Amino acid sequence: MKIAVYPGTFDPITNGHLDVIKRAAELFDRVIVVIARNSAKRPLFTDAERRRMVADSVRPFRNVTVDAFDGMLVSYATRKKAIAIIRGLRAVSDFEYEFQMALMNRKLAGDVSTVFLMPHEKYTYLNSSIVRELAAVGGDITDFVPPSVARFLARKFKKKA
Amino acid sequence: MKIAVYPGTFDPITNGHLDVIKRAAELFDRVIVVIARNSAKRPLFTDAERRRMVADSVRPFRNVTVDAFDGMLVSYATRKKAIAIIRGLRAVSDFEYEFQMALMNRKLAGDVSTVFLMPHEKYTYLNSSIVRELAAVGGDITDFVPPSVARFLARKFKKKA
Amino acid sequence: MKIAVYPGTFDPITNGHLDVIKRAAELFDRVIVVIARNSAKRPLFTDAERRRMVADSVRPFRNVTVDAFDGMLVSYATRKKAIAIIRGLRAVSDFEYEFQMALMNRKLAGDVSTVFLMPHEKYTYLNSSIVRELAAVGGDITDFVPPSVARFLARKFKKKA
Amino acid sequence: MKIAVYPGTFDPITNGHLDVIKRAAELFDRVIVVIARNSAKRPLFTDAERRRMVADSVRPFRNVTVDAFDGMLVSYATRKKAIAIIRGLRAVSDFEYEFQMALMNRKLAGDVSTVFLMPHEKYTYLNSSIVRELAAVGGDITDFVPPSVARFLARKFKKKA
Amino acid sequence: MKIAVYPGTFDPITNGHLDVIKRAAELFDRVIVVIARNSAKRPLFTDAERRRMVADSVRPFRNVTVDAFDGMLVSYATRKKAIAIIRGLRAVSDFEYEFQMALMNRKLAGDVSTVFLMPHEKYTYLNSSIVRELAAVGGDITDFVPPSVARFLARKFKKKA
Amino acid sequence: MKIAVYPGTFDPITNGHLDVIKRAAELFDRVIVVIARNSAKRPLFTDAERRRMVADSVRPFRNVTVDAFDGMLVSYATRKKAIAIIRGLRAVSDFEYEFQMALMNRKLAGDVSTVFLMPHEKYTYLNSSIVRELAAVGGDITDFVPPSVARFLARKFKKKA
Repeated sequence: MKIAVYPGTFDPITNGHLDVIKRAAELFDRVIVVIARNSAKRPLFTDAERRRMVADSVRPFRNVTVDAFDGMLVSYATRKKAIAIIRGLRAVSDFEYEFQMALMNRKLAGDVSTVFLMPHEKYTYLNSSIVRELAAVGGDITDFVPPSVARFLARKFKKKA
Repeated sequence: MKIAVYPGTFDPITNGHLDVIKRAAELFDRVIVVIARNSAKRPLFTDAERRRMVADSVRPFRNVTVDAFDGMLVSYATRKKAIAIIRGLRAVSDFEYEFQMALMNRKLAGDVSTVFLMPHEKYTYLNSSIVRELAAVGGDITDFVPPSVARFLARKFKKKA
Repeated sequence: MKIAVYPGTFDPITNGHLDVIKRAAELFDRVIVVIARNSAKRPLFTDAERRRMVADSVRPFRNVTVDAFDGMLVSYATRKKAIAIIRGLRAVSDFEYEFQMALMNRKLAGDVSTVFLMPHEKYTYLNSSIVRELAAVGGDITDFVPPSVARFLARKFKKKA
Repeated sequence: MKIAVYPGTFDPITNGHLDVIKRAAELFDRVIVVIARNSAKRPLFTDAERRRMVADSVRPFRNVTVDAFDGMLVSYATRKKAIAIIRGLRAVSDFEYEFQMALMNRKLAGDVSTVFLMPHEKYTYLNSSIVRELAAVGGDITDFVPPSVARFLARKFKKKA
Repeated sequence: MKIAVYPGTFDPITNGHLDVIKRAAELFDRVIVVIARNSAKRPLFTDAERRRMVADSVRPFRNVTVDAFDGMLVSYATRKKAIAIIRGLRAVSDFEYEFQMALMNRKLAGDVSTVFLMPHEKYTYLNSSIVRELAAVGGDITDFVPPSVARFLARKFKKKA
Repeated sequence: MKIAVYPGTFDPITNGHLDVIKRAAELFDRVIVVIARNSAKRPLFTDAERRRMVADSVRPFRNVTVDAFDGMLVSYATRKKAIAIIRGLRAVSDFEYEFQMALMNRKLAGDVSTVFLMPHEKYTYLNSSIVRELAAVGGDITDFVPPSVARFLARKFKKKA
């Protein structure tokens, strides 16, 4: 069985992420979406919220599961017997950071390949940070995120108001 | 069975290409290395020579075969029931052209994913054109290409001299 | 009256170009689409054919006209009393060449500004060269070019066959 | 009347910004320089200070006014009946972020175009952050900012000392 | 005597930095590695720790010394009668920031040249921040840093645990 | 004695090249400007013409000489006992090709360092190809090239007319 992991902060998961997950689910026998718990980024949503939103959103894919991790991604991947780390690529600036991480991970665990997939061009402009900014100022985000995330965002920004 | 195609001019195949093929052979059940026959690039080697060099070089991988194609890559991929097109990414300049082709191919055949793999950083500086230039001025190319290609290059540039 | 010129090879004009023209026609009082006659690129279509395709395609815009030029673009722009040169930007690789040309043109004619517009993201992957390649191998190009261009391409590649 | 908005943090306004404003003032009937009030960036200068410095600096242009905004830029632009958002482009790294914002804004308000202008190459190396760093260590910034800004910077860093 | 300065945060110094220092030591008569004291970046290591690690690591090079500076780099370089500022370049994203700084420094001190050197490709993926992250999660960093730094990192992260 | 080589096609030499040469002449004891004889690029000027233009232009620098080479640059550099290869960097697109060449040359001759210098920002937009195009359409190139080159260009394009 060929297993891939798709790591990220998912703060929150967007339709761009889901497009990558759909592709990965066709290429591999099993895909584990893994939430980076101790991210330096101070996420808007808690671990539990992010995990819940991902779980709600990947329900249609029967070979996709959700998990969370601390520490080194390659250790997690090796423990799960994954042969691939999935990353989405949208822009040149993504590319350089991803390139460095892929080379470092290859050095640390030579038998796990980093596999880059490109989301549909309609998601080129889309990332979690733009979604958060848009929701914060009351913009309409229903085209950019799955329904569960839209509800979570509405609640988060109502509470703050 | 999950099939991937790895298209290219392979004029000639280098150790960087082989590194990508090795990775792809682990990720997919079958990998077809396909030589673009009617390339605009006026290759140094004939179709037959390029095919021979690829065949010699991929012999160690038992799930890798060689083929050649004319016309549209996505038509070829669809005919072969491939679910993925493999591309190697080394540099930002690669990235943009590859991005455009991947989006176009996705538009033309939505069920074939383009999958990007990164060769080992020691192949960052390596491409077929640099190998040809180096061989033309008598440089030592044994670290950059498989033995079969080294022989083909030696013969090609002796004939020219 | 604020006049802009939109120069290019237009070999052939695509829906991406038309998207830029539509935007420019809203921003300026008059837009002149100008075909670079003595391009180094050896175009597939003759000057007359390219001009005809552009003219057919811009008919819906009442403040857009077509012309052709030789020599220096800034001289042409100055002669036409244009205050702006329009350029479409899609990718980083576009950007650098365009940056150099814009700085050079500014040096040569300080009172003509280069104005960059971005086509819709669905045209990110689209350029004349991809359209020509696609048409050459018999691909369906009706989503990428205006109807007049589709007919010209069909005729061009039938003649060649 | 063709109206454009030129948004930014302007912390502080530099000669590079002024070069873009001068160009925009020639292309459009009216240009509104708008200061992003609730920027995530924790500006050195208060809203009122930034607005004052911009107002002092754009006085020579009779069709340029100053304003400030909260919330979504496209809502502001629509309210002001602007047809264009002006952005300066200097470098590839600018380009990608700007590209994403332009596409997002186009999605949110299809009738407002993002228009990119390039400042003179002598401002390539210039941005507000470099000006702040330079002033903080006592460097001479008179070539990089208008006189009003030089005075504000002198006062700011004297107070801190 | 031709003197060069090699400035940086060195938080901590890596094998990539050392590769650049080795090159610089061959090109110039004397190289001063200078630690930016008042960096905005909130370093992991104190000034004294960073200086100690650099001093330990450059001991093999007899024409390399260590120092620290506050304020403007070009003032420091001029005071030391340096004719060159050394910078390592690994990636496109490095390049743009470095380009801006080099142009600014040239404007501020026209007789000091910025000289860019490229570390070995095996250090492409290496920077201080990746080393810190790796050490924080208990990864093996002995291939990436000199022995003195490995000891400092071990102590730092033991203390935190 | 520290020797550097500065290779190029110099078709023709521009003020941007001269700016790099001036810098290199301050950093090294001797600089050899070397003209790539067998360039793939089909130069406008013959070897002899290019050499003559370079020689005329570098006369003010007493430690700069001119030469030409065939074959591998690193062999030439080693033969001349050079410790450095000088390259000018202006743009991201330059950077990637240069990066590959520098890594390849380092692999081929580990004791020769590639040293990158940045020309003044007023030469950002300048290269030999833009100069040739400009001269071909009768543009004024006196600000971009040394006087000797201006005369050579005038003669070349008169002959063609």
